[in-house]
Amino acid sequence: MLPKFDILTNEEVNKIHENTMRILSEIGVEFEFEPAVEVLKKNGQKVDGNRVYFDRDFIEEMIEKAPSQFILHARNPENNLVVGDDSIIFMPGYGAPFIHTVDGERRDATMDDYNKIVKLAGASKNFQMTGGNVVEPTDIPDEIRHLEMSYSHIINSDKCYMGSSTGYERAMDTIKIAGILHGGMDVIKEKPALVCLINSLTPLKYDQRMLGALMAYAETGQAMVIASLVMAGSTGPATMAGALSLQNAEVLAGIVLAQCISPGTPVIYGSTSAITDMSSGALSIGNPEGSLFTSASAQLARFYGVPCRGGGGLTDAKITDGQAGYESMMVLLTTSLTGVHFVMHAAGILQYFMAMSYEKLMMDDEIAGMILRYLKGFDMSSDEKMAFDVIKKVGPGGHFLTQKHTRKNFKEEFFMPALSNRGAFDTWHDEKIEINQAAEKKWQKVLENYKAPELDANVKAKIEQFIEKRKSELI
Amino acid sequence: MLPKFDILTNEEVNKIHENTMRILSEIGVEFEFEPAVEVLKKNGQKVDGNRVYFDRDFIEEMIEKAPSQFILHARNPENNLVVGDDSIIFMPGYGAPFIHTVDGERRDATMDDYNKIVKLAGASKNFQMTGGNVVEPTDIPDEIRHLEMSYSHIINSDKCYMGSSTGYERAMDTIKIAGILHGGMDVIKEKPALVCLINSLTPLKYDQRMLGALMAYAETGQAMVIASLVMAGSTGPATMAGALSLQNAEVLAGIVLAQCISPGTPVIYGSTSAITDMSSGALSIGNPEGSLFTSASAQLARFYGVPCRGGGGLTDAKITDGQAGYESMMVLLTTSLTGVHFVMHAAGILQYFMAMSYEKLMMDDEIAGMILRYLKGFDMSSDEKMAFDVIKKVGPGGHFLTQKHTRKNFKEEFFMPALSNRGAFDTWHDEKIEINQAAEKKWQKVLENYKAPELDANVKAKIEQFIEKRKSELI
Repeated sequence: MLPKFDILTNEEVNKIHENTMRILSEIGVEFEFEPAVEVLKKNGQKVDGNRVYFDRDFIEEMIEKAPSQFILHARNPENNLVVGDDSIIFMPGYGAPFIHTVDGERRDATMDDYNKIVKLAGASKNFQMTGGNVVEPTDIPDEIRHLEMSYSHIINSDKCYMGSSTGYERAMDTIKIAGILHGGMDVIKEKPALVCLINSLTPLKYDQRMLGALMAYAETGQAMVIASLVMAGSTGPATMAGALSLQNAEVLAGIVLAQCISPGTPVIYGSTSAITDMSSGALSIGNPEGSLFTSASAQLARFYGVPCRGGGGLTDAKITDGQAGYESMMVLLTTSLTGVHFVMHAAGILQYFMAMSYEKLMMDDEIAGMILRYLKGFDMSSDEKMAFDVIKKVGPGGHFLTQKHTRKNFKEEFFMPALSNRGAFDTWHDEKIEINQAAEKKWQKVLENYKAPELDANVKAKIEQFIEKRKSELI
Repeated sequence: MLPKFDILTNEEVNKIHENTMRILSEIGVEFEFEPAVEVLKKNGQKVDGNRVYFDRDFIEEMIEKAPSQFILHARNPENNLVVGDDSIIFMPGYGAPFIHTVDGERRDATMDDYNKIVKLAGASKNFQMTGGNVVEPTDIPDEIRHLEMSYSHIINSDKCYMGSSTGYERAMDTIKIAGILHGGMDVIKEKPALVCLINSLTPLKYDQRMLGALMAYAETGQAMVIASLVMAGSTGPATMAGALSLQNAEVLAGIVLAQCISPGTPVIYGSTSAITDMSSGALSIGNPEGSLFTSASAQLARFYGVPCRGGGGLTDAKITDGQAGYESMMVLLTTSLTGVHFVMHAAGILQYFMAMSYEKLMMDDEIAGMILRYLKGFDMSSDEKMAFDVIKKVGPGGHFLTQKHTRKNFKEEFFMPALSNRGAFDTWHDEKIEINQAAEKKWQKVLENYKAPELDANVKAKIEQFIEKRKSELI
């Protein structure tokens, strides 16, 4: 693995930290959920209504309790994941309500899309998780969506996946399902199997729904991403350093709360901060500023000793074109080089989180593979790899194509593209297929050939039973 | 500016260096040009026919003489460039014989294309040079192409540009033209105005044409890129470490020769090494391996204390699609983060150097702008930038859009895209324009509005006179 790229100096990290401590102690954060305020009050923090003013020593003490890495457990132990250290975990996008089609049309996402995307993530060697909320399945009633989504991840793959964070009750439903899958709530308390996404409400607030979920995950020993999406220029200041400080304050406040509820709770420092397109007021995510927020966040998370979530294959494009390509590569590459561990939205996203695209998912799969190859760097571990002997043998003006050394090494050394076209012009010109079209053929073929890993019939029945019971209670 | 990203450990740099020294001393390099062999022989190197075996102390001594940075002079002194240190210089592609059109057709490049591309580079704030050989103008006889190309750069822009490297005589023609432009050969001897591209003939050779040009530039005090393109798997070993060592040997051999001819000659360590697509035997440039070669080369150049050339907006795609986007961003971003100074092929390239595309040129201009913004990092130089006061003023749940602080800062902090579409789906859907089409409109508009900077009539007449004379001698 390559070393991690630090974009900030130590002095800059300290500046952000100091600014953050002032924000947390002098301005404070509002928690719109009484039990959360109570927890912080009991821990000696100054409270005024919903607003909590944090003590800086206390913040540092609580952050200290969060683990620097942890293992997330899959139903297939081969798919267990280290979160932190040198790991990097890619998964599809999260929460998009729309599907953009190959020809630039838009439609509502459905449960059928959800299942397909989970399968595509399950099939990919570049995605280590199937994600969570891979689209909003709008044909399923909101009240029971979380149940269907958990079921989809479990039935279609045996990789790790994410649970619900839409309030305490739904969060607990998905945790209980994970409990059944893994053999009991006590099992997953020791071996966390679920992770959720807790978002702050920028600037400087947390809402009831998210705080409920945070408490459910903390109580049961499950993991959570605690993330802030500052839109610099609208929900946050238009200076990058100011927006980063605001994000940092929100994330630290959430981490402190989680550690108060249950010290040692596995948390992931999350950043989705981005800029506002000042001409429209809309969010813009496929840009250098978002890349900088992500890169700096990776470094802040290292400073605080917790794993980091950020970035993804992010773009503002509406279709899988050149813009989608360069924006997604920029964000995912800077994400990966700077040491982010947990990458939601690594694939499929179009139009600033609003849409999922099958073609984009396939293109981002290729991008992820390329980045993973780059991260491996150079292998200089043997004379064979240094190749002096074969260079001497071939000599000036010779050729390596027919050498045994070449045949022996190229497959291990070279990334093999699954989608990119490396052919000559004439061959390409016969059909003039752009990668958007090639990607459509690709995902259709992957789905055709995908076979979901088997699930124990007994476990399956228990999960279905639980889900049916909850459905009847919720609708 | 962000710090430079080192992908190799010091130990790895030393391993490559040691391997390289063994190649140069034990295997040697062939120079197909008697005067070059003579120079090296006179300097005490062991010679056998055309093959030169280098002494490692001598190599290190000669490399020591090369400057770590130098200034390249433009006819407009505002466009003078530092080559080395923290600078990064982007320019269009070099040497493509074909133009790929917006709709995926191919045609031979012409002098008209050449002029247009120089103008587009002249108009861009992201390209610091107009390049050299921006396409092969196939409608101009080979014998006089170098004259027409130099003239195009001079007449259409006042930025720095590159001269010919196709043999001693043509190289000298373009140097003499630069001499007239800058007021005399003695002027440019002190203040280098021209840079050329010297390529090795991998493995471990230099041909007569390139060596002739190398000698012309070294004799006249002009700058040169000394570059190697190892195709790992065909012209070089299939191990990355082996190919990098081979490249390093070739480049160092060229640098040593240039320093023997004229100590202190400004040289740029050049890498274009890439892999062979093993299914076809063709070159592949838009990939993680090429990015790794470039990144490692930047670090080797730092180790040797010379500026670096590498990378670009490189792709194997045939049209400006998603693949062109992600491949070009990957290579140009890794090029830029790791500290390459001189980036030929930063824009316009399609199909592994075979084609130039106007649309791709515009897309790469946007990519270059995004990267330059990323490289600027965070500004934490003032309380204003840290934004504590405005965060306090707005408070939890407030909004920054209407704050004076926002209006004052966003233009300086945010990159303003020239091409990328950040709009909503509905607006985009009216025309469904992909970035390939948007780029076509863009370059047409830039050309319509472009006004070349004025050139002194007297100087212009002298240059035209020289060119006419040379044409009559050459055809």
